[in-house]
Amino acid sequence: MNPNSESAELGPALQSLVTRAERALQDCLPPAVHASDHLHRAMHYAVLGGGKRLRPMLVYAAAQACGEDGPALDAAACAVELIHAYSLVHDDLPAMDDDALRRGRPTCHMVFGEAMAILAGDALQALAFELLADERAGGVEAPVRIAMLRTLGRACGAEGMAGGQALDLAAVGRSLGLAELEYMHGCKTGALIRAAVRLGALVSNADADALHALDTYASAVGLAFQVRDDILDVEGESAVIGKTAGKDAADAKPTFPSIIGLDASRARLAELTDAALAAIAPWGERAASLRELARYSAHRAH
Amino acid sequence: MNPNSESAELGPALQSLVTRAERALQDCLPPAVHASDHLHRAMHYAVLGGGKRLRPMLVYAAAQACGEDGPALDAAACAVELIHAYSLVHDDLPAMDDDALRRGRPTCHMVFGEAMAILAGDALQALAFELLADERAGGVEAPVRIAMLRTLGRACGAEGMAGGQALDLAAVGRSLGLAELEYMHGCKTGALIRAAVRLGALVSNADADALHALDTYASAVGLAFQVRDDILDVEGESAVIGKTAGKDAADAKPTFPSIIGLDASRARLAELTDAALAAIAPWGERAASLRELARYSAHRAH
Repeated sequence: MNPNSESAELGPALQSLVTRAERALQDCLPPAVHASDHLHRAMHYAVLGGGKRLRPMLVYAAAQACGEDGPALDAAACAVELIHAYSLVHDDLPAMDDDALRRGRPTCHMVFGEAMAILAGDALQALAFELLADERAGGVEAPVRIAMLRTLGRACGAEGMAGGQALDLAAVGRSLGLAELEYMHGCKTGALIRAAVRLGALVSNADADALHALDTYASAVGLAFQVRDDILDVEGESAVIGKTAGKDAADAKPTFPSIIGLDASRARLAELTDAALAAIAPWGERAASLRELARYSAHRAH
Repeated sequence: MNPNSESAELGPALQSLVTRAERALQDCLPPAVHASDHLHRAMHYAVLGGGKRLRPMLVYAAAQACGEDGPALDAAACAVELIHAYSLVHDDLPAMDDDALRRGRPTCHMVFGEAMAILAGDALQALAFELLADERAGGVEAPVRIAMLRTLGRACGAEGMAGGQALDLAAVGRSLGLAELEYMHGCKTGALIRAAVRLGALVSNADADALHALDTYASAVGLAFQVRDDILDVEGESAVIGKTAGKDAADAKPTFPSIIGLDASRARLAELTDAALAAIAPWGERAASLRELARYSAHRAH
């Protein structure tokens, strides 16, 4: 049996985390029945469109590794996924990546119009912070919750996701080195993935050593996820990956395969996966979900 | 001497609050010299472009009314102004209001391009929450700081500013009643103005009665500000108001003058100003800045 295809699908443990995330996301969104109906529907469409839920899984799995599994995790899981969803909506806009297809469906602005897509993204970002600051998300002491809000704020901003996206835009058509490419992805997608793992750890009151190990894990997994994305863009078919295949090359975007070639990209992916697994090796069985997520990120087929 | 023209300019007390806000805003933005230079410059351009600083003034003035004047106010003042600045950048986008002029200068997307304007707005929103969650903004206890973050989150989201903007977009070309118009503005601009006043009050550990009075004040001032805006759009000249005059009518946007006429709009403005002043009347001299701000909102020439 091919170990790659084996771990390309989620096992039952991760699948239950996805189910949990889906329910929490449903609950955290404003009802789609009121006056500002159109905005709410655009928010639902952006969030409940069948994402992989990698970031919520990382929140839950990091907390499990630290021995925590309380309801306070749901707010954190939703917060990171709302940020991710908003970033996709804005990235897909005509002024940005101009993508018409996402997760196998028309992108948010294709359905609701550009203005509503911009606003839905804006409102999703606000909702993410509101969720973490909500007193109903009980069981987390105020100083910890502030650390969580600070972690999310930094991950989203000019030194994190938005900054990485700006670097990405500036890189179109330019030739980038491997280090620059990895730095850009470390901001653009890595910052939020690290934040997801850290939020799970913060809810669990993890100590500094655990935070450090989880940070190493998260940095490696985040980058591995991106390398896999670039490989899929070369190898995959639109129908399977749910977005337009070959788009990176058509857009003259620097990718791992375009800079170091496909074989070296596969080798880098294996190296990153090993680094992620090594960081959490001492934790044994408690880190089973984190371990599965590292393998999944490296081998997923979409 | 005409009392209107007298209060159309800021007195020295408010002017010193503007100076304080300008300095705090300068300090809170990321340096515009790094790799993601372009994004940082767009953020600087959006924030340091000479706004009225109404919202920071409201933070400081509300806190003064409650007897508080510590450095923790600066983070709150910056946070509301960053949110305001980001909302203007996104509102001005071609897909939204499509405005080329703001504060007498080309809008952010005219200078930096649409993609960078979208990202700068996104990053400014994240920075606002990060500031409130920053441990360096000391002197505020964690539970209070969480209440501040929650207040800001709600004010920005689907039930606040973004929701109001969605209602505004949906209202173009439709005939709206006065109540609908006031509800829309209560979300679109009112929510953030109420949040500004509330943040100042929260830093000051104001009691429930004070919070209620300040809420009444803020709702009235927020709406008065908008009525004045609509009147200026009819009466003003682009050179003075710093944006394109007559644009609301050209865009078929519902306004107070278009719905109830210019005279009734002026009467509503006076009524709102009276309501704002009445709410803070018991506070005497401590509320001097709030009082001046109410008059300024009603009589300003731009």
